[in-house]
Amino acid sequence: MIIVLQKEATEKQLQDIVDKIKGYGLEPHVIVGVARTVIGLVGDKQGLEPRVFEGMPGVEKAVPIMAPYKLASRDAKAEDTLIRVGDTLIGGGELIYMAGPCAVESREQILETAYAVKEAGASILRGGAFKPRTSPYSFQGLGETGLQYLAEAGQAAGLLTVSEVVDPSDVDLVSKYVDILQIGARNMQNFALLRRVGQTRKPVLLKRGLSATIEEWLMAAEYIMSEGNYQVILCERGIRTFETATRNTLDVGAIALVRQLSHLPVVADPSHATGRRDLVVPAGCAAVAAGAQGLLVEVHPNPDAALSDGAQSLTPKQFEQMVGAVAQVAKSVTPEPTKYWWNRNAV
Amino acid sequence: MIIVLQKEATEKQLQDIVDKIKGYGLEPHVIVGVARTVIGLVGDKQGLEPRVFEGMPGVEKAVPIMAPYKLASRDAKAEDTLIRVGDTLIGGGELIYMAGPCAVESREQILETAYAVKEAGASILRGGAFKPRTSPYSFQGLGETGLQYLAEAGQAAGLLTVSEVVDPSDVDLVSKYVDILQIGARNMQNFALLRRVGQTRKPVLLKRGLSATIEEWLMAAEYIMSEGNYQVILCERGIRTFETATRNTLDVGAIALVRQLSHLPVVADPSHATGRRDLVVPAGCAAVAAGAQGLLVEVHPNPDAALSDGAQSLTPKQFEQMVGAVAQVAKSVTPEPTKYWWNRNAV
Amino acid sequence: MIIVLQKEATEKQLQDIVDKIKGYGLEPHVIVGVARTVIGLVGDKQGLEPRVFEGMPGVEKAVPIMAPYKLASRDAKAEDTLIRVGDTLIGGGELIYMAGPCAVESREQILETAYAVKEAGASILRGGAFKPRTSPYSFQGLGETGLQYLAEAGQAAGLLTVSEVVDPSDVDLVSKYVDILQIGARNMQNFALLRRVGQTRKPVLLKRGLSATIEEWLMAAEYIMSEGNYQVILCERGIRTFETATRNTLDVGAIALVRQLSHLPVVADPSHATGRRDLVVPAGCAAVAAGAQGLLVEVHPNPDAALSDGAQSLTPKQFEQMVGAVAQVAKSVTPEPTKYWWNRNAV
Amino acid sequence: MIIVLQKEATEKQLQDIVDKIKGYGLEPHVIVGVARTVIGLVGDKQGLEPRVFEGMPGVEKAVPIMAPYKLASRDAKAEDTLIRVGDTLIGGGELIYMAGPCAVESREQILETAYAVKEAGASILRGGAFKPRTSPYSFQGLGETGLQYLAEAGQAAGLLTVSEVVDPSDVDLVSKYVDILQIGARNMQNFALLRRVGQTRKPVLLKRGLSATIEEWLMAAEYIMSEGNYQVILCERGIRTFETATRNTLDVGAIALVRQLSHLPVVADPSHATGRRDLVVPAGCAAVAAGAQGLLVEVHPNPDAALSDGAQSLTPKQFEQMVGAVAQVAKSVTPEPTKYWWNRNAV
Repeated sequence: MIIVLQKEATEKQLQDIVDKIKGYGLEPHVIVGVARTVIGLVGDKQGLEPRVFEGMPGVEKAVPIMAPYKLASRDAKAEDTLIRVGDTLIGGGELIYMAGPCAVESREQILETAYAVKEAGASILRGGAFKPRTSPYSFQGLGETGLQYLAEAGQAAGLLTVSEVVDPSDVDLVSKYVDILQIGARNMQNFALLRRVGQTRKPVLLKRGLSATIEEWLMAAEYIMSEGNYQVILCERGIRTFETATRNTLDVGAIALVRQLSHLPVVADPSHATGRRDLVVPAGCAAVAAGAQGLLVEVHPNPDAALSDGAQSLTPKQFEQMVGAVAQVAKSVTPEPTKYWWNRNAV
Repeated sequence: MIIVLQKEATEKQLQDIVDKIKGYGLEPHVIVGVARTVIGLVGDKQGLEPRVFEGMPGVEKAVPIMAPYKLASRDAKAEDTLIRVGDTLIGGGELIYMAGPCAVESREQILETAYAVKEAGASILRGGAFKPRTSPYSFQGLGETGLQYLAEAGQAAGLLTVSEVVDPSDVDLVSKYVDILQIGARNMQNFALLRRVGQTRKPVLLKRGLSATIEEWLMAAEYIMSEGNYQVILCERGIRTFETATRNTLDVGAIALVRQLSHLPVVADPSHATGRRDLVVPAGCAAVAAGAQGLLVEVHPNPDAALSDGAQSLTPKQFEQMVGAVAQVAKSVTPEPTKYWWNRNAV
Repeated sequence: MIIVLQKEATEKQLQDIVDKIKGYGLEPHVIVGVARTVIGLVGDKQGLEPRVFEGMPGVEKAVPIMAPYKLASRDAKAEDTLIRVGDTLIGGGELIYMAGPCAVESREQILETAYAVKEAGASILRGGAFKPRTSPYSFQGLGETGLQYLAEAGQAAGLLTVSEVVDPSDVDLVSKYVDILQIGARNMQNFALLRRVGQTRKPVLLKRGLSATIEEWLMAAEYIMSEGNYQVILCERGIRTFETATRNTLDVGAIALVRQLSHLPVVADPSHATGRRDLVVPAGCAAVAAGAQGLLVEVHPNPDAALSDGAQSLTPKQFEQMVGAVAQVAKSVTPEPTKYWWNRNAV
Repeated sequence: MIIVLQKEATEKQLQDIVDKIKGYGLEPHVIVGVARTVIGLVGDKQGLEPRVFEGMPGVEKAVPIMAPYKLASRDAKAEDTLIRVGDTLIGGGELIYMAGPCAVESREQILETAYAVKEAGASILRGGAFKPRTSPYSFQGLGETGLQYLAEAGQAAGLLTVSEVVDPSDVDLVSKYVDILQIGARNMQNFALLRRVGQTRKPVLLKRGLSATIEEWLMAAEYIMSEGNYQVILCERGIRTFETATRNTLDVGAIALVRQLSHLPVVADPSHATGRRDLVVPAGCAAVAAGAQGLLVEVHPNPDAALSDGAQSLTPKQFEQMVGAVAQVAKSVTPEPTKYWWNRNAV
């Protein structure tokens, strides 16, 4: 960390800051500049925040040098993390498709979708049973019954399953039925929930929050990992910006950057990122071109009758065509960023 | 709701949309314009979302006309909601101060703060026991012990208490110790938690999410109210924007607008909104000038030694001076917006 | 347009609004709903803004139905616009590369770059002579001398040229030297400048503003087109969001959407969108995968010595490798969105 | 500036960076930390940007320590700048009102408004003659005729005048008629225009750009000042955020912060910041409570018939009531921030 003093900081204030730094077992390096004095902190103190110094008299600002995440960082682990679930390898060379309806609506609906997306190339079936909806008056999901249908459909079609968990007390229940636990965007900083899924040994699909910075996203992964669960799959699903023509703004730069900063696998959700069926395919292609190792896609046998998010759902037929288009793009992108010259981790 | 058809929509598509509208028990009004055909929906269908129509063939977009919240709206209840806790009336003519440390750190710290903020004019003591921290390595709060200290300090100094609850399974525990339950910004769309506090009969302080629209904020209130708990206090605490010179951007326009849209009381948190001690007072004055009916202020007996958020904490002495400054502003603002000519609800 | 009345709007207010609508030569359709009365406006009135009605007593809001741009819209012209400059066709099936340094720094620098980017596959040479810099103390460009060097280098290497114009009074001067006039992001709503380049018959490369909505971007194109110059190339270059890890956020959804909304060609600038050399290639691939018909890339023979934006510049060798990678992606994407099923303009 | 090296930076890379630093006449201080090596730069080099180093091999990032603006900063000038125009003192203890219509529409309209706002307490008459409109089909202002009407009305009513200039070549013309030149939000980084008004000796009202950071805003002021014109009045007018319920988001924290960072006077425009007549008064009160030294308010004799921005215009009668309300707030706020304890420049 670097601490910048105010122009008018006194000797006494400087001394107080130096003392506080030493109190943390760190070594202060004072550099007297022309316009400002700055202090560099040398040593290792996990979790020390700039704000601890920023309120002190004489301090203009404190600038962190190191990223605050450790376990999620390439500094801690240089090679890519591979997550094996059943026969499926996430984070390896093969593109992974997680497909299915926004919400499990009925046994028939999820079974029909399961067979169709399996046929089209998906290896993981998605479907919400506990839905976080903006309105209390909207369809909230089928709960445990939905999980049962999802598990049955996955088994029948030969697919792994992923479903969202929204309450720490439901983690055991959801874990009983699905292969991968999903943390939704609105819960990315629900730390009680993060800790709880960190205590399981199920892979976790961690969606980026609507307005979460890349650093906050990786810190959310760190929460899960700090509890001992290292199987975290990051999912970029669009961020909130001033633009309202699309539901969210897919951040492809974040995909490419996180592939460098972290060893964790990164997938993308072009359905939520755009909110429009007619943009899902180009956005999915773009995500893969930027380095995404898989896609999470909303597919519904009859989107116009969907109880939620029909507007951004593909039909099984459209999904099949999408897989064809994306596969072309995937072939033209080396799956290992460490092989690219432009990657700082290139070997 | 208004549904706008695509330029090239067919008669068949129009008919399908009309049928779907009728299927919801609503009456379609078709207006054939020069460039587009639009359909107005007449009738009442709570929870019906535009997205239900937006995925249909022939539909360009669907535009909601009514706000999706009901119970939180002035349409449902014209007069201001007053919340009485003990002797304190929130939402009435008197400005309410909720003051105290970011986190309860020790019995001594919270007791000392309690006496000091009481002396300065606060009626409610704040202090976190379960802290939602961005880093798993930061101080996470004292848990139940913190609640005990907070309750003791509140009682000793003659103050009501407010503290954050982050896990639905903690709601009963926190309710045992405090007078007001706080929902933090990061949990504003933690719907499981909202429902759970909605099932209590404790007043709820609902902070606006970092990137929540006013509509989403009022929908979060609606979640609580739809469970039967009408005692919701809205708290504007700054939103996330591109500007990084301040921690967040205090949205005074939202304060003024929500006072018109909703009957619920609105307070502001200038500490989190700015993140800088030297901006807390002007931001607090601005919030009150815009119509805030109370302030939530971080006060710490020794900010430089605070375990969290010292940089934005006032000393008790500074808080006392702030109360003096804000009181001046408050006096110059009529507390009842319905008395203003510029308010649409003016009588 | 749809006008929504306030719940408490009077008969008299309704009548005034109806009269005002008729005053514009439009036909009002009043729909009395359960909770609100709305009025649909039928007729054609270019440039009529919702805000004209929003201030009237009794009006809650006015919602536009039609996009405000005409000439730039697919409604006005269904087929893609092709722009021919010399032998180069922009907006056709071939991907176009505009490459070169942020600023022309010397005759040698631009000549060396020109030969190198030509060799690598570029057809257009970029280079700034009038630089809009955030600081008045930064290098501001070589002015006319820079244009001369650029023109000479373009001619020598057999490349077309593009350079930014920042002042309406420089349009003639810049037009003398370059083939394409660039409007920078910071000038996207410099309407005097837009009108002025609209009066030339040079193709215009119109960068999206840092915080411009898609609609505002197309309205800026409309300004140019309304003066009679239909040769507008739209350039997505990243928008400003809360995320600071990348310089800007490349909006691939906007690329895909604008390809549908407008007939104008769309290119992308992955250099400014990311601000980091190590993200330029994946971002460029993503843009093309989303539908971009060309790329604008900063290339410098010696980026570490560049007078501006070296951090995001590629070396000629890196650019050559980029062209190889992007070409692979381009091959897997059909260049004509109207051929895609997912495109609303699909035939 | 502080340069942070990559974990894997080599000795050779470190040496290259050190050499480059010395090449700028600066002194490098190398601090070898546990996880990273950082280099502090000592010396003064105006206009040196972090990006100059960020592209170098071995560099992770470069962090600026000093603000890039000089003349606009309190470092350069500790005491508040006072701007005298005629008898009016801007930046002194007295609150200044600049009021009038969005656009000058006719001689009668501006004369009627002038008398009315003068009567209500305004000292400066505003009115646009060259209007930057989003649509080329909207009313664009009366041009020089509008300036003549404005000047006549100002003189008749005993008011100073302010009007926007949008084209560098119009600066002389506009200067002939008005007392203060306005730079609009969309032109805040129109550097050719900034330089041009910097060459006049007219006070300049510099609106903050829609998505300009505080630093960029002060850099725009620096452009004007670097040409020798020190009479810059900063105007906060709301920034663009994800919230669409208000036209923009008034940034009161920026008002308070800029009063500390800069010696220049700061005013606010609650009309554009909110876009809604019913929010103008509370937003204006909030701006003044946060430290604004004046207000720019849209007033129209007949807002419902206004050719632009009627929805956010007050009637003269409403403006008069606003002045009364704001004056109350102003009285309760000390006009000199340097008198506040919470201000870092407090004496």
